[in-house]
Amino acid sequence: MNYCSDCGDTVKLGTPPGDDRPRYICESCGTIHYENPKVVVGCIPEMDGKILLCRRSIEPRSGKWTLPAGYLENGETVAQGARREALEEAGARIEILAPYALYNICYVNQVYLMFRAQLIDAGIKAGNESSEVRLFLEKDIPWDEIAFTVIEKTLQQYFNDRPAGLFPFHIGNIQKSNSTGEVNKGALDG
Amino acid sequence: MNYCSDCGDTVKLGTPPGDDRPRYICESCGTIHYENPKVVVGCIPEMDGKILLCRRSIEPRSGKWTLPAGYLENGETVAQGARREALEEAGARIEILAPYALYNICYVNQVYLMFRAQLIDAGIKAGNESSEVRLFLEKDIPWDEIAFTVIEKTLQQYFNDRPAGLFPFHIGNIQKSNSTGEVNKGALDG
Repeated sequence: MNYCSDCGDTVKLGTPPGDDRPRYICESCGTIHYENPKVVVGCIPEMDGKILLCRRSIEPRSGKWTLPAGYLENGETVAQGARREALEEAGARIEILAPYALYNICYVNQVYLMFRAQLIDAGIKAGNESSEVRLFLEKDIPWDEIAFTVIEKTLQQYFNDRPAGLFPFHIGNIQKSNSTGEVNKGALDG
Repeated sequence: MNYCSDCGDTVKLGTPPGDDRPRYICESCGTIHYENPKVVVGCIPEMDGKILLCRRSIEPRSGKWTLPAGYLENGETVAQGARREALEEAGARIEILAPYALYNICYVNQVYLMFRAQLIDAGIKAGNESSEVRLFLEKDIPWDEIAFTVIEKTLQQYFNDRPAGLFPFHIGNIQKSNSTGEVNKGALDG
Protein backbone atom coordinates (compact mmCIF):
# COMPACT_ATOMS: atom_id res chain seq x y z
CA MET A 1 0.00 0.00 0.00
CA ASN A 2 1.44 3.33 -1.12
CA TYR A 3 -1.47 5.77 -1.22
CA CYS A 4 -4.55 6.56 0.87
CA SER A 5 -7.69 5.18 -0.78
CA ASP A 6 -9.70 7.98 0.84
CA CYS A 7 -7.72 11.12 -0.09
CA GLY A 8 -4.97 9.91 -2.45
CA ASP A 9 -2.04 11.21 -0.41
CA THR A 10 0.86 8.95 0.62
CA VAL A 11 0.65 6.50 3.51
CA LYS A 12 3.38 5.30 5.79
CA LEU A 13 3.66 2.48 8.28
CA GLY A 14 3.21 3.45 11.92
CA THR A 15 1.63 2.14 15.10
CA PRO A 16 -1.47 4.18 16.00
CA PRO A 17 -1.93 5.30 19.64
CA GLY A 18 -3.38 2.46 21.70
CA ASP A 19 -2.56 -0.07 19.00
CA ASP A 20 0.21 -2.67 19.15
CA ARG A 21 1.07 -3.26 15.51
CA PRO A 22 2.01 -1.19 12.47
CA ARG A 23 -0.73 -0.02 10.11
CA TYR A 24 -0.70 2.04 6.96
CA ILE A 25 -1.64 5.57 8.04
CA CYS A 26 -2.36 8.48 5.70
CA GLU A 27 0.13 11.31 6.16
CA SER A 28 -2.52 13.82 5.13
CA CYS A 29 -5.97 12.81 6.40
CA GLY A 30 -4.80 10.38 9.11
CA THR A 31 -6.99 7.49 7.99
CA ILE A 32 -5.75 4.16 9.35
CA HIS A 33 -5.94 1.40 6.74
CA TYR A 34 -6.46 -1.92 8.47
CA GLU A 35 -5.68 -5.12 6.60
CA ASN A 36 -7.24 -8.37 7.75
CA PRO A 37 -7.42 -12.02 6.71
CA LYS A 38 -9.84 -13.11 4.01
CA VAL A 39 -12.31 -15.97 4.29
CA VAL A 40 -12.30 -18.72 1.67
CA VAL A 41 -15.52 -20.76 1.58
CA GLY A 42 -15.88 -24.10 -0.11
CA CYS A 43 -17.50 -27.49 0.11
CA ILE A 44 -17.11 -31.23 -0.34
CA PRO A 45 -19.94 -32.06 -2.75
CA GLU A 46 -20.92 -35.72 -2.57
CA MET A 47 -23.26 -37.82 -4.71
CA ASP A 48 -23.62 -41.62 -4.56
CA GLY A 49 -20.46 -41.75 -2.46
CA LYS A 50 -18.43 -39.86 -5.05
CA ILE A 51 -16.78 -36.48 -4.51
CA LEU A 52 -16.84 -33.65 -7.02
CA LEU A 53 -13.44 -32.23 -7.89
CA CYS A 54 -12.52 -29.46 -10.33
CA ARG A 55 -9.36 -29.37 -12.42
CA ARG A 56 -8.02 -25.82 -12.28
CA SER A 57 -7.54 -23.96 -15.54
CA ILE A 58 -5.95 -20.90 -13.92
CA GLU A 59 -2.86 -20.21 -11.87
CA PRO A 60 -1.83 -20.98 -9.23
CA ARG A 61 -1.76 -24.75 -9.65
CA SER A 62 -3.31 -24.83 -13.10
CA GLY A 63 -4.00 -28.46 -14.10
CA LYS A 64 -4.32 -29.66 -10.51
CA TRP A 65 -7.52 -30.83 -8.82
CA THR A 66 -9.40 -28.99 -6.11
CA LEU A 67 -12.71 -28.72 -4.28
CA PRO A 68 -14.92 -25.79 -5.28
CA ALA A 69 -13.92 -22.88 -3.04
CA GLY A 70 -13.23 -19.17 -3.25
CA TYR A 71 -13.25 -15.84 -1.45
CA LEU A 72 -16.32 -14.95 0.54
CA GLU A 73 -17.87 -11.79 -0.92
CA ASN A 74 -19.32 -8.82 0.91
CA GLY A 75 -23.04 -9.20 1.57
CA GLU A 76 -23.24 -12.99 1.42
CA THR A 77 -23.34 -15.65 4.13
CA VAL A 78 -20.66 -18.33 4.28
CA ALA A 79 -23.19 -20.89 3.02
CA GLN A 80 -24.25 -18.65 0.14
CA GLY A 81 -20.60 -18.19 -0.78
CA ALA A 82 -19.94 -21.93 -0.78
CA ARG A 83 -22.99 -22.53 -2.99
CA ARG A 84 -21.95 -19.76 -5.37
CA GLU A 85 -18.45 -21.18 -5.75
CA ALA A 86 -19.79 -24.68 -6.49
CA LEU A 87 -22.05 -23.21 -9.18
CA GLU A 88 -19.34 -20.97 -10.67
CA GLU A 89 -16.52 -23.49 -10.73
CA ALA A 90 -18.43 -26.70 -11.43
CA GLY A 91 -21.96 -25.75 -12.52
CA ALA A 92 -22.95 -27.72 -9.44
CA ARG A 93 -26.15 -27.19 -7.55
CA ILE A 94 -25.57 -28.28 -3.97
CA GLU A 95 -27.35 -28.54 -0.68
CA ILE A 96 -25.14 -27.44 2.19
CA LEU A 97 -25.35 -30.05 4.97
CA ALA A 98 -23.16 -28.65 7.75
CA PRO A 99 -19.97 -26.72 8.41
CA TYR A 100 -17.17 -29.25 8.51
CA ALA A 101 -13.70 -27.78 8.90
CA LEU A 102 -11.83 -24.53 9.42
CA TYR A 103 -8.17 -24.17 8.46
CA ASN A 104 -5.94 -21.23 9.24
CA ILE A 105 -3.39 -20.45 6.54
CA CYS A 106 -1.64 -17.65 8.37
CA TYR A 107 1.19 -17.15 5.91
CA VAL A 108 -1.27 -16.00 3.24
CA ASN A 109 -3.77 -14.45 5.68
CA GLN A 110 -6.58 -16.81 4.79
CA VAL A 111 -9.17 -18.69 6.80
CA TYR A 112 -10.71 -21.63 4.94
CA LEU A 113 -14.19 -22.73 5.92
CA MET A 114 -15.32 -25.98 4.30
CA PHE A 115 -18.84 -27.43 4.33
CA ARG A 116 -20.18 -30.90 3.74
CA ALA A 117 -22.60 -30.81 0.83
CA GLN A 118 -24.92 -32.97 -1.22
CA LEU A 119 -24.83 -32.61 -4.98
CA ILE A 120 -28.46 -32.09 -6.00
CA ASP A 121 -28.14 -33.46 -9.53
CA ALA A 122 -25.41 -34.82 -11.78
CA GLY A 123 -25.55 -31.85 -14.14
CA ILE A 124 -22.03 -30.60 -13.54
CA LYS A 125 -20.00 -28.54 -15.99
CA ALA A 126 -16.57 -26.91 -15.88
CA GLY A 127 -16.80 -23.18 -15.10
CA ASN A 128 -14.45 -20.34 -16.07
CA GLU A 129 -11.71 -21.40 -13.69
CA SER A 130 -11.91 -25.15 -14.41
CA SER A 131 -10.91 -27.24 -17.41
CA GLU A 132 -12.73 -30.34 -16.20
CA VAL A 133 -15.05 -31.44 -13.40
CA ARG A 134 -15.50 -35.03 -12.35
CA LEU A 135 -16.92 -37.26 -9.61
CA PHE A 136 -14.36 -39.46 -7.87
CA LEU A 137 -14.68 -42.53 -5.70
CA GLU A 138 -12.33 -42.36 -2.73
CA LYS A 139 -10.02 -44.96 -4.31
CA ASP A 140 -9.72 -42.83 -7.46
CA ILE A 141 -8.91 -39.48 -5.81
CA PRO A 142 -5.77 -38.12 -7.58
CA TRP A 143 -3.85 -37.53 -4.35
CA ASP A 144 -0.64 -36.61 -6.13
CA GLU A 145 -2.41 -33.94 -8.16
CA ILE A 146 -4.37 -32.06 -5.51
CA ALA A 147 -3.83 -28.31 -5.96
CA PHE A 148 -3.50 -27.19 -2.33
CA THR A 149 -2.51 -28.73 0.99
CA VAL A 150 -5.68 -27.39 2.61
CA ILE A 151 -7.80 -29.30 0.08
CA GLU A 152 -5.77 -32.47 0.55
CA LYS A 153 -6.21 -32.22 4.33
CA THR A 154 -9.94 -31.57 4.01
CA LEU A 155 -10.38 -34.67 1.85
CA GLN A 156 -8.21 -36.84 4.12
CA GLN A 157 -10.23 -35.74 7.16
CA TYR A 158 -13.48 -36.37 5.33
CA PHE A 159 -12.54 -39.90 4.31
CA ASN A 160 -11.36 -40.56 7.86
CA ASP A 161 -14.73 -39.54 9.27
CA ARG A 162 -17.01 -40.99 6.63
CA PRO A 163 -16.92 -44.69 7.55
CA ALA A 164 -18.40 -43.90 10.99
CA GLY A 165 -20.85 -41.39 9.55
CA LEU A 166 -19.83 -38.88 12.20
CA PHE A 167 -18.52 -35.52 11.07
CA PRO A 168 -17.49 -33.36 14.02
CA PHE A 169 -16.32 -29.83 13.21
CA HIS A 170 -12.55 -29.75 12.75
CA ILE A 171 -10.05 -26.98 13.09
CA GLY A 172 -6.48 -26.98 11.86
CA ASN A 173 -3.49 -24.94 10.78
CA ILE A 174 -1.71 -25.25 7.45
CA GLN A 175 2.02 -24.58 7.79
CA LYS A 176 4.13 -23.17 5.00
CA SER A 177 7.35 -24.89 5.93
CA ASN A 178 5.85 -28.35 5.94
CA SER A 179 4.37 -29.25 2.60
CA THR A 180 2.82 -32.40 4.03
CA GLY A 181 0.78 -30.11 6.26
CA GLU A 182 1.01 -30.73 9.98
CA VAL A 183 -2.66 -30.08 10.52
CA ASN A 184 -4.93 -30.21 13.58
CA LYS A 185 -2.06 -30.63 15.98
CA GLY A 186 -2.12 -27.62 18.23
CA ALA A 187 -4.71 -25.74 16.21
CA LEU A 188 -6.35 -24.45 19.38
CA ASP A 189 -3.01 -23.68 20.99
CA GLY A 190 -1.29 -22.34 17.90
CA MET B 1 -12.77 4.18 -1.95
CA ASN B 2 -11.67 7.10 -4.12
CA TYR B 3 -8.02 6.46 -4.97
CA CYS B 4 -5.83 3.52 -5.93
CA SER B 5 -3.71 2.41 -2.97
CA ASP B 6 -1.06 1.17 -5.42
CA CYS B 7 -0.53 4.19 -7.71
CA GLY B 8 -2.62 7.00 -6.19
CA ASP B 9 -4.77 7.67 -9.27
CA THR B 10 -8.57 7.68 -9.13
CA VAL B 11 -10.65 4.51 -9.07
CA LYS B 12 -14.10 3.93 -10.41
CA LEU B 13 -16.65 1.17 -9.98
CA GLY B 14 -16.83 -1.34 -12.79
CA THR B 15 -17.29 -5.08 -13.33
CA PRO B 16 -14.02 -6.69 -14.45
CA PRO B 17 -14.11 -9.15 -17.38
CA GLY B 18 -15.22 -12.58 -16.17
CA ASP B 19 -16.46 -11.13 -12.88
CA ASP B 20 -20.10 -10.70 -11.90
CA ARG B 21 -20.03 -7.79 -9.50
CA PRO B 22 -18.69 -4.24 -9.39
CA ARG B 23 -15.22 -3.60 -7.97
CA TYR B 24 -13.15 -0.50 -7.54
CA ILE B 25 -10.75 -0.46 -10.50
CA CYS B 26 -7.86 1.97 -10.95
CA GLU B 27 -8.30 4.14 -14.05
CA SER B 28 -4.54 4.37 -14.44
CA CYS B 29 -2.83 1.08 -13.48
CA GLY B 30 -5.91 -1.16 -13.73
CA THR B 31 -5.54 -2.69 -10.29
CA ILE B 32 -8.77 -4.28 -9.07
CA HIS B 33 -9.40 -3.55 -5.40
CA TYR B 34 -11.41 -6.39 -3.88
CA GLU B 35 -13.26 -5.83 -0.63
CA ASN B 36 -14.22 -8.82 1.48
CA PRO B 37 -15.84 -9.57 4.85
CA LYS B 38 -13.80 -9.39 8.03
CA VAL B 39 -13.59 -12.11 10.66
CA VAL B 40 -14.37 -11.27 14.28
CA VAL B 41 -13.04 -13.82 16.76
CA GLY B 42 -14.14 -14.09 20.36
CA CYS B 43 -14.88 -16.48 23.17
CA ILE B 44 -17.16 -17.39 26.05
CA PRO B 45 -14.73 -17.55 28.98
CA GLU B 46 -16.10 -19.66 31.83
CA MET B 47 -14.85 -20.24 35.37
CA ASP B 48 -16.76 -22.03 38.14
CA GLY B 49 -19.90 -21.83 36.01
CA LYS B 50 -19.63 -18.07 35.63
CA ILE B 51 -19.14 -16.21 32.35
CA LEU B 52 -16.76 -13.31 31.86
CA LEU B 53 -18.32 -10.21 30.35
CA CYS B 54 -16.73 -6.84 29.58
CA ARG B 55 -18.51 -3.49 29.86
CA ARG B 56 -17.58 -1.46 26.79
CA SER B 57 -15.92 1.91 27.31
CA ILE B 58 -15.90 2.81 23.62
CA GLU B 59 -18.50 3.33 20.93
CA PRO B 60 -20.48 1.70 19.56
CA ARG B 61 -22.55 0.59 22.54
CA SER B 62 -20.39 2.16 25.18
CA GLY B 63 -21.60 1.11 28.63
CA LYS B 64 -23.11 -2.15 27.38
CA TRP B 65 -21.80 -5.64 28.15
CA THR B 66 -20.12 -7.97 25.69
CA LEU B 67 -17.96 -11.06 25.36
CA PRO B 68 -14.30 -10.44 24.51
CA ALA B 69 -14.09 -10.36 20.70
CA GLY B 70 -12.47 -8.38 17.92
CA TYR B 71 -11.10 -8.41 14.41
CA LEU B 72 -8.80 -11.25 13.42
CA GLU B 73 -5.40 -9.83 12.49
CA ASN B 74 -3.14 -10.84 9.63
CA GLY B 75 -0.69 -13.56 10.62
CA GLU B 76 -2.64 -15.04 13.52
CA THR B 77 -4.87 -18.10 13.80
CA VAL B 78 -8.48 -17.74 14.86
CA ALA B 79 -7.61 -19.26 18.27
CA GLN B 80 -4.68 -16.88 18.72
CA GLY B 81 -6.96 -13.98 17.87
CA ALA B 82 -9.59 -15.04 20.40
CA ARG B 83 -6.92 -15.40 23.11
CA ARG B 84 -5.44 -12.00 22.25
CA GLU B 85 -8.82 -10.30 22.48
CA ALA B 86 -9.56 -11.87 25.88
CA LEU B 87 -6.21 -10.63 27.14
CA GLU B 88 -6.57 -7.13 25.64
CA GLU B 89 -10.16 -6.49 26.67
CA ALA B 90 -10.29 -8.30 30.00
CA GLY B 91 -6.73 -9.12 31.04
CA ALA B 92 -7.98 -12.69 30.86
CA ARG B 93 -5.77 -15.69 30.26
CA ILE B 94 -7.90 -18.38 28.66
CA GLU B 95 -7.64 -21.88 27.34
CA ILE B 96 -9.57 -22.30 24.11
CA LEU B 97 -11.71 -25.45 24.35
CA ALA B 98 -13.42 -25.68 20.96
CA PRO B 99 -14.97 -23.62 18.19
CA TYR B 100 -18.59 -23.10 19.14
CA ALA B 101 -20.56 -20.83 16.80
CA LEU B 102 -20.31 -18.89 13.57
CA TYR B 103 -22.64 -16.01 12.82
CA ASN B 104 -22.92 -14.16 9.54
CA ILE B 105 -23.65 -10.45 9.88
CA CYS B 106 -23.95 -9.69 6.19
CA TYR B 107 -25.12 -6.11 6.51
CA VAL B 108 -21.80 -5.11 8.06
CA ASN B 109 -19.71 -7.69 6.16
CA GLN B 110 -18.63 -9.55 9.28
CA VAL B 111 -18.28 -13.23 10.16
CA TYR B 112 -18.21 -13.88 13.90
CA LEU B 113 -16.44 -16.99 15.13
CA MET B 114 -16.93 -17.71 18.82
CA PHE B 115 -15.05 -20.28 20.91
CA ARG B 116 -15.81 -21.96 24.20
CA ALA B 117 -13.02 -21.18 26.65
CA GLN B 118 -11.86 -21.84 30.17
CA LEU B 119 -10.61 -18.91 32.21
CA ILE B 120 -7.22 -20.02 33.54
CA ASP B 121 -7.20 -17.81 36.64
CA ALA B 122 -9.41 -15.15 38.20
CA GLY B 123 -6.92 -12.35 37.55
CA ILE B 124 -9.11 -10.31 35.21
CA LYS B 125 -8.78 -6.58 34.64
CA ALA B 126 -10.52 -4.09 32.35
CA GLY B 127 -8.48 -3.34 29.24
CA ASN B 128 -8.40 -0.21 27.06
CA GLU B 129 -11.81 -0.81 25.55
CA SER B 130 -13.56 -1.85 28.78
CA SER B 131 -14.64 0.09 31.86
CA GLU B 132 -15.35 -3.03 33.91
CA VAL B 133 -15.00 -6.81 33.67
CA ARG B 134 -17.00 -9.21 35.76
CA LEU B 135 -17.97 -12.87 36.11
CA PHE B 136 -21.70 -13.56 35.88
CA LEU B 137 -23.82 -16.51 36.87
CA GLU B 138 -26.42 -17.28 34.21
CA LYS B 139 -29.19 -15.83 36.38
CA ASP B 140 -27.30 -12.56 36.70
CA ILE B 141 -26.51 -11.96 33.00
CA PRO B 142 -27.63 -8.40 32.19
CA TRP B 143 -29.73 -9.44 29.17
CA ASP B 144 -31.15 -5.94 28.64
CA GLU B 145 -27.68 -4.45 28.51
CA ILE B 146 -25.89 -6.76 26.07
CA ALA B 147 -24.07 -4.66 23.46
CA PHE B 148 -24.75 -6.67 20.31
CA THR B 149 -27.37 -9.13 19.07
CA VAL B 150 -24.66 -11.58 18.03
CA ILE B 151 -23.36 -11.69 21.62
CA GLU B 152 -26.86 -12.11 23.04
CA LYS B 153 -27.49 -15.02 20.65
CA THR B 154 -24.15 -16.63 21.48
CA LEU B 155 -24.92 -16.51 25.19
CA GLN B 156 -28.50 -17.81 24.73
CA GLN B 157 -27.22 -20.72 22.65
CA TYR B 158 -24.54 -21.48 25.20
CA PHE B 159 -26.95 -21.57 28.13
CA ASN B 160 -29.29 -23.75 26.05
CA ASP B 161 -26.52 -26.28 25.43
CA ARG B 162 -24.79 -26.20 28.79
CA PRO B 163 -27.24 -28.27 30.89
CA ALA B 164 -26.66 -31.30 28.63
CA GLY B 165 -22.94 -30.66 28.43
CA LEU B 166 -23.08 -31.04 24.65
CA PHE B 167 -21.85 -28.16 22.52
CA PRO B 168 -22.30 -28.87 18.80
CA PHE B 169 -20.97 -26.26 16.41
CA HIS B 170 -23.69 -23.76 15.52
CA ILE B 171 -24.14 -21.52 12.54
CA GLY B 172 -26.54 -18.61 12.26
CA ASN B 173 -27.36 -15.33 10.57
CA ILE B 174 -27.94 -12.03 12.31
CA GLN B 175 -30.53 -9.92 10.50
CA LYS B 176 -30.53 -6.14 10.58
CA SER B 177 -34.27 -5.69 10.31
CA ASN B 178 -35.06 -7.89 13.25
CA SER B 179 -33.45 -6.65 16.42
CA THR B 180 -34.45 -9.81 18.27
CA GLY B 181 -32.24 -11.68 15.79
CA GLU B 182 -33.85 -14.54 13.91
CA VAL B 183 -30.80 -16.73 14.20
CA ASN B 184 -30.02 -20.30 13.13
CA LYS B 185 -33.18 -20.62 11.11
CA GLY B 186 -32.15 -21.08 7.53
CA ALA B 187 -28.49 -20.32 8.16
CA LEU B 188 -27.41 -23.02 5.75
CA ASP B 189 -30.05 -22.04 3.20
CA GLY B 190 -29.70 -18.27 3.60
